[in-house]
Amino acid sequence: MILLSHYDTIIFAFAEYTKKSFFCAMALHKQTAPDLSEYKQEYFVKGISLDNVIFGFHEEQFKVLLLQCRNKKNWMLPGGHVLYEENVDDAAKRILQDRTGLKNVYLQQFWLFGDTERSSPKVVHAAMKALQLDGANSDWMKERFVSVGYYALVEFAKVNPNPDALSLSCEWHDLLQLPPLIFDHRAIVEKALEQLRYHLLYQPVGYNLLPKQFTLRQLQSIYELILNKKLDRPNFNRKMLSLGILIKKEKLFSGSAHKAPYLYSFHKKNYFKFLSQGFSDWF
Amino acid sequence: MILLSHYDTIIFAFAEYTKKSFFCAMALHKQTAPDLSEYKQEYFVKGISLDNVIFGFHEEQFKVLLLQCRNKKNWMLPGGHVLYEENVDDAAKRILQDRTGLKNVYLQQFWLFGDTERSSPKVVHAAMKALQLDGANSDWMKERFVSVGYYALVEFAKVNPNPDALSLSCEWHDLLQLPPLIFDHRAIVEKALEQLRYHLLYQPVGYNLLPKQFTLRQLQSIYELILNKKLDRPNFNRKMLSLGILIKKEKLFSGSAHKAPYLYSFHKKNYFKFLSQGFSDWF
Repeated sequence: MILLSHYDTIIFAFAEYTKKSFFCAMALHKQTAPDLSEYKQEYFVKGISLDNVIFGFHEEQFKVLLLQCRNKKNWMLPGGHVLYEENVDDAAKRILQDRTGLKNVYLQQFWLFGDTERSSPKVVHAAMKALQLDGANSDWMKERFVSVGYYALVEFAKVNPNPDALSLSCEWHDLLQLPPLIFDHRAIVEKALEQLRYHLLYQPVGYNLLPKQFTLRQLQSIYELILNKKLDRPNFNRKMLSLGILIKKEKLFSGSAHKAPYLYSFHKKNYFKFLSQGFSDWF
Repeated sequence: MILLSHYDTIIFAFAEYTKKSFFCAMALHKQTAPDLSEYKQEYFVKGISLDNVIFGFHEEQFKVLLLQCRNKKNWMLPGGHVLYEENVDDAAKRILQDRTGLKNVYLQQFWLFGDTERSSPKVVHAAMKALQLDGANSDWMKERFVSVGYYALVEFAKVNPNPDALSLSCEWHDLLQLPPLIFDHRAIVEKALEQLRYHLLYQPVGYNLLPKQFTLRQLQSIYELILNKKLDRPNFNRKMLSLGILIKKEKLFSGSAHKAPYLYSFHKKNYFKFLSQGFSDWF
């Protein structure tokens, strides 16, 4: 019975996963173990997987979204495989939704992880054990995969992630206190953070992370969390205002009016222009 | 006879390609057509290819390195496939050397091209025709591939590229006058250029492109070529000198000494620190 419910779990997960729910539901009805090797051949692009690194912000906190493996000890990024007739960018969105329930998140491609070591028998064996997939017909997961990394920034107070059937839970973790991760997922989180820091130099951040109107101090705190250092306030304000992505609003109401900071909102058109084309005016 | 020499070409190309030259030489000796489908299964990571965009600089010129297809009309980037036991980064170097003769080039990963459209039957058919591989047993090349893009910057006066056996020639082309390219190679060149422009904001360029000692004007001209715009000289000089990657040398000898510009060399340690870690001081 334990074995059956284990396979049921896999069937449900792969039903969502492959959108071939009819065949999966049939297998479930018969309560037979699905032959996972079939899925690979028929539906997935061979040799490629992807991993989503979802960074969550709320006030002074900066976290990353992880799924708990069925062994309770290990955690993983919400990743998966690309369907044969699916753009890789679209696969990233679908997988994120299937595995965490998160929708309409802007995912930024950041790296291709292509070393052979990441699919070494030792690494794969440990991951299969953590996922409790080592008993299933999952040989296709033991082949070499390269993985494309995507990251996103979300306000975690606004989202309510739901784990998929392959995972016990879906939780936000402090970046400085990551639990043990399977495969090379820790290195993927670190690379995502490195690339996010670089991208700050040619792309704005803050949209969807801040209220409609915000102070420059609030914007600065997001940059400080990402860069993990304190920034000089006048310098930050001068640079941010020079980009043309902020619109000055009323002063924030407070007891002493002359000390109150101004509120700002994003100039949406300019913000998204820079998001797609990058800043070009540094030089 | 034409058919045989056509297959010989493919055999030679794939002998280099797969490093399995013994088997290929055997096939050549027997003058039989090789079964290219075997190569896929045995030696290559399925579903993934890579493309190298080699940008060449010399004085005021900025070009890209292309291979000429056997139909004489179309051109292609020096790309290829990843061996099963090879890191993707290493594959990029091997493929560049196999296909163009270029060695010891620093290749920067810049994008994963993952749309389904790039492997559409129409696109693949046109490419096979240009490569004159449409008669060969090359079905494996018709499957869906995603491609990892790498770029490099070289001084083209210093290198002497040699085409592989799949190509008629290997030549530098003006970026503004690209010939017809197979697959989505034009889009790959454009994306490489976009990413190179972004990377200028967190990585220095110029090493290997300039003589040991150079003027700031020479460095500026490389930035102007990449950004395709004129830059303000005092502003450029101030920013470049603030990075700590330049060492001031003697003045350049000229008739009127007081007008002569200073020569500079790169502070090698700082340059490579920034190349691997990025600038962190913009904010």
